[in-house]
Amino acid sequence: MASEENNSTLHGPHASPRIQKRAPYETLLHPEAVAIVGAAREEGKVGNVILRNLVSNGYRGKIYPVNPKATGEILGIRAYPSLASIPEPVDLAVIVLPASVIIDSVRECVKKKVKFAIVISGGFSEIGEEGKELEHKLLEVIENSGTRIIGPNTVGVYFPAAKLSTALNLPERSSFPPLGTIAFISQSGALGLQTLDTISEYGTGISAFVNLGNRIDLSEEELIRYFADDPGTSSIVLYLESFHDGNKFFEAARAVSKTKPIVVLKGGRTESGAKAAFLHTGSLSTNAEVVKGVFDQVGVVQAYDETELMDYGKALAYQKPLAGGRIAIVTTAGGLGVITSDYIASEEHGVGLLLAKLSDSTKKKIRDIIVPIGSPENPIDLTSEGSTENYRQVLKILNEDDAVDGIVVYALFDTAKVDESLIDVLEEQMRVGKPMVVGTIGSSKYKKSMLAEAEKRKIPAYPSTVRAVNALKALYSRGMYLQRRGLLRAE
Amino acid sequence: MASEENNSTLHGPHASPRIQKRAPYETLLHPEAVAIVGAAREEGKVGNVILRNLVSNGYRGKIYPVNPKATGEILGIRAYPSLASIPEPVDLAVIVLPASVIIDSVRECVKKKVKFAIVISGGFSEIGEEGKELEHKLLEVIENSGTRIIGPNTVGVYFPAAKLSTALNLPERSSFPPLGTIAFISQSGALGLQTLDTISEYGTGISAFVNLGNRIDLSEEELIRYFADDPGTSSIVLYLESFHDGNKFFEAARAVSKTKPIVVLKGGRTESGAKAAFLHTGSLSTNAEVVKGVFDQVGVVQAYDETELMDYGKALAYQKPLAGGRIAIVTTAGGLGVITSDYIASEEHGVGLLLAKLSDSTKKKIRDIIVPIGSPENPIDLTSEGSTENYRQVLKILNEDDAVDGIVVYALFDTAKVDESLIDVLEEQMRVGKPMVVGTIGSSKYKKSMLAEAEKRKIPAYPSTVRAVNALKALYSRGMYLQRRGLLRAE
Repeated sequence: MASEENNSTLHGPHASPRIQKRAPYETLLHPEAVAIVGAAREEGKVGNVILRNLVSNGYRGKIYPVNPKATGEILGIRAYPSLASIPEPVDLAVIVLPASVIIDSVRECVKKKVKFAIVISGGFSEIGEEGKELEHKLLEVIENSGTRIIGPNTVGVYFPAAKLSTALNLPERSSFPPLGTIAFISQSGALGLQTLDTISEYGTGISAFVNLGNRIDLSEEELIRYFADDPGTSSIVLYLESFHDGNKFFEAARAVSKTKPIVVLKGGRTESGAKAAFLHTGSLSTNAEVVKGVFDQVGVVQAYDETELMDYGKALAYQKPLAGGRIAIVTTAGGLGVITSDYIASEEHGVGLLLAKLSDSTKKKIRDIIVPIGSPENPIDLTSEGSTENYRQVLKILNEDDAVDGIVVYALFDTAKVDESLIDVLEEQMRVGKPMVVGTIGSSKYKKSMLAEAEKRKIPAYPSTVRAVNALKALYSRGMYLQRRGLLRAE
Repeated sequence: MASEENNSTLHGPHASPRIQKRAPYETLLHPEAVAIVGAAREEGKVGNVILRNLVSNGYRGKIYPVNPKATGEILGIRAYPSLASIPEPVDLAVIVLPASVIIDSVRECVKKKVKFAIVISGGFSEIGEEGKELEHKLLEVIENSGTRIIGPNTVGVYFPAAKLSTALNLPERSSFPPLGTIAFISQSGALGLQTLDTISEYGTGISAFVNLGNRIDLSEEELIRYFADDPGTSSIVLYLESFHDGNKFFEAARAVSKTKPIVVLKGGRTESGAKAAFLHTGSLSTNAEVVKGVFDQVGVVQAYDETELMDYGKALAYQKPLAGGRIAIVTTAGGLGVITSDYIASEEHGVGLLLAKLSDSTKKKIRDIIVPIGSPENPIDLTSEGSTENYRQVLKILNEDDAVDGIVVYALFDTAKVDESLIDVLEEQMRVGKPMVVGTIGSSKYKKSMLAEAEKRKIPAYPSTVRAVNALKALYSRGMYLQRRGLLRAE
């Protein structure tokens, strides 16, 4: 396993002067006491909104508002004039002060032995040389201390298990996902929050969200190691516009991807995108071909847009990887079978996998079960006469055919003989059988409840043929990587 | 304009023995009197469900239930023992009798001078030789008559302007879209209905839906000419697994695409997909490269899945084509600008267009308007401080820059200074300016109303970066086709 103390020659622009020691993952994900430095009584102020969110979301630990001018209580919670005056230990400090006084505040964090200081404030390297200078000073302050910095210039974190969010989302405008098993690291705050909002529509959950911001200290290469340790995380997805330290990231990814899948959406893969990334986060891009090559080498699955990123993270969190590329399709709508076959088989507009060639014995068994006008050939078409029980029987047969590596099954609710218990059938067959992804097309009146129920049972379900097949391809890519490294467990 | 009487040498497997004359589009889309042949009193029977749907949906014309055994009324409507006994003319007959008695029924239609007979019943070529024989007899019956057949083996039609649907959707399970301007022709019934259900989620409307079924008579090549004539149709989208008659389709497409955009999702473009299509609809596929080449030649925009099909149909129905490939992006979230830039510029994972190079004067004007931390470079980043008024000003400036051919604008509602009036700004700028597509990411609490409101105003809006950019690419493809043919009007 690659060592974090490895002194790489390839430092990123913000690499720390010394390597900080990584704390146990619990300290980050389950802080027992949080201080809001800059907590405010005035509504609308950042220090007020964050405190209010923390309280109203039901954060499970202790909350300490800190404000030198505040006496008594803020929002009914006893306030302290300084971190030092808090009688108990503080795990996490959320700092919302102006950039000019951040140095002193972080110095206080070090004295108080705060483990993580989340610096929400902007006004650092993103505004120019002066800000960059401030960042260097911040790093000097935490050097050789037990205090780590997240940010600055970050929306912070969202840890659903702890019910802790430092994000300033307007609750009447956006939503947070429930607790799940996908850890999400984003260099961009807005994109991160928008993506969280998007996946919450159908109840896809996450184990953690961290916005890196200017990432002067805590960075993606360390975070993926935290999440590797976290038993609540099954897959790790990242939105990055650059690497904090390319070599270290790839080392960490190689180590972590042995046990947990990693998906990266790397912004700035074209010249135009790289220019945009530079304007957005000051990121200097790495050659896209190099990135792709290294991702393949270290087992990172690459996503190309925000939908793929979370779709892949979900499939990889909920399902086993594929041991091969031979796919069976089950549908009650023949047209979906056709579109899906094309998309599976096509290299140009598709994923370039194979339609499984079912054995004669499998086909005969299926023929005996489904209606005469149905097709026992792959794609298996149960037709509009197909029943929930047909799904169960056919999936069972496919799960027993060695010529099948993975299954795309369409859960369609527009026909009379399919009912809501189909979700039970899918769960049952998924648990015992081969990797499976589910597509739900149309069925507007069932779709939302079907997709939400699928989430609860950790069934990867998608409202489009292409999204379902792409997710299966992610499971295939992961399987092939593990196979190359001799890590794919036999069923 | 290509003549329909052209005697092509390339007849499809089901081509009519003689070419039937095309009736005016109004006869098809606005029938004044509909007979349900096989109307039934018993709940759950097809002839009962269709009649009930027709009544409950508020079909605007006269309804005649026909059943030799029925006397008096069915569902409160006077029933007739035969078509002949109906005292008034009948435009459309929906036939739900067993295959064995269809011949006689269609003969009655011919005598009654019914203009369109929709044969819902299956039991024809899809079941084998005997059924194929029946189809040939049906064609003999209508030879040289004024009666045309839709189907057999079809879910029929949905004409929202007439409030006429012959589909057997279970209303508690699925939804129909409202009246819009996209005409949708599908060889597959289930896929067609599921797609209608999907687009109805955000209120995308259609002018007509026709399921071709076994298409022994009325086929896609004629239908696109109907929709070319229909002033209520702005774009025509098709799901096909094969062509009724390839030459005629391409002739018709070439003629129609001069004035109206056509989008085709051609199932069976791979060997695997072609096999699936053969099993599904008995379609013999055409070589994918040939199809693509001809589509390019005759101005058909190709879609590769059900989402693209309707997304492109919508963009082409609501927006002007692009006169060039230089795209400007407006966003309040920098990360979306990066992902979008990559997807626009990339050939491999993207659409291979260009980021517009804004003139210095344009950049200066934008610089003067947006907040200092924003970016006046393309992608233009208004940042979380961006306001609705910023959108208006920036779009106005871009609309005046000759270096911009099209715009992707993100309507994001997660920040405080953007409000719902953004939709008014988008509509205003779209009306006067360059082709525009809108992306709405996250914003779960606004997304649905935003997308629905966009539909009402004919603004093409999509809940993903890739879908927005792909739609813009469809507008580009159409623009380039019209330009090659000298048909693109100057602004």
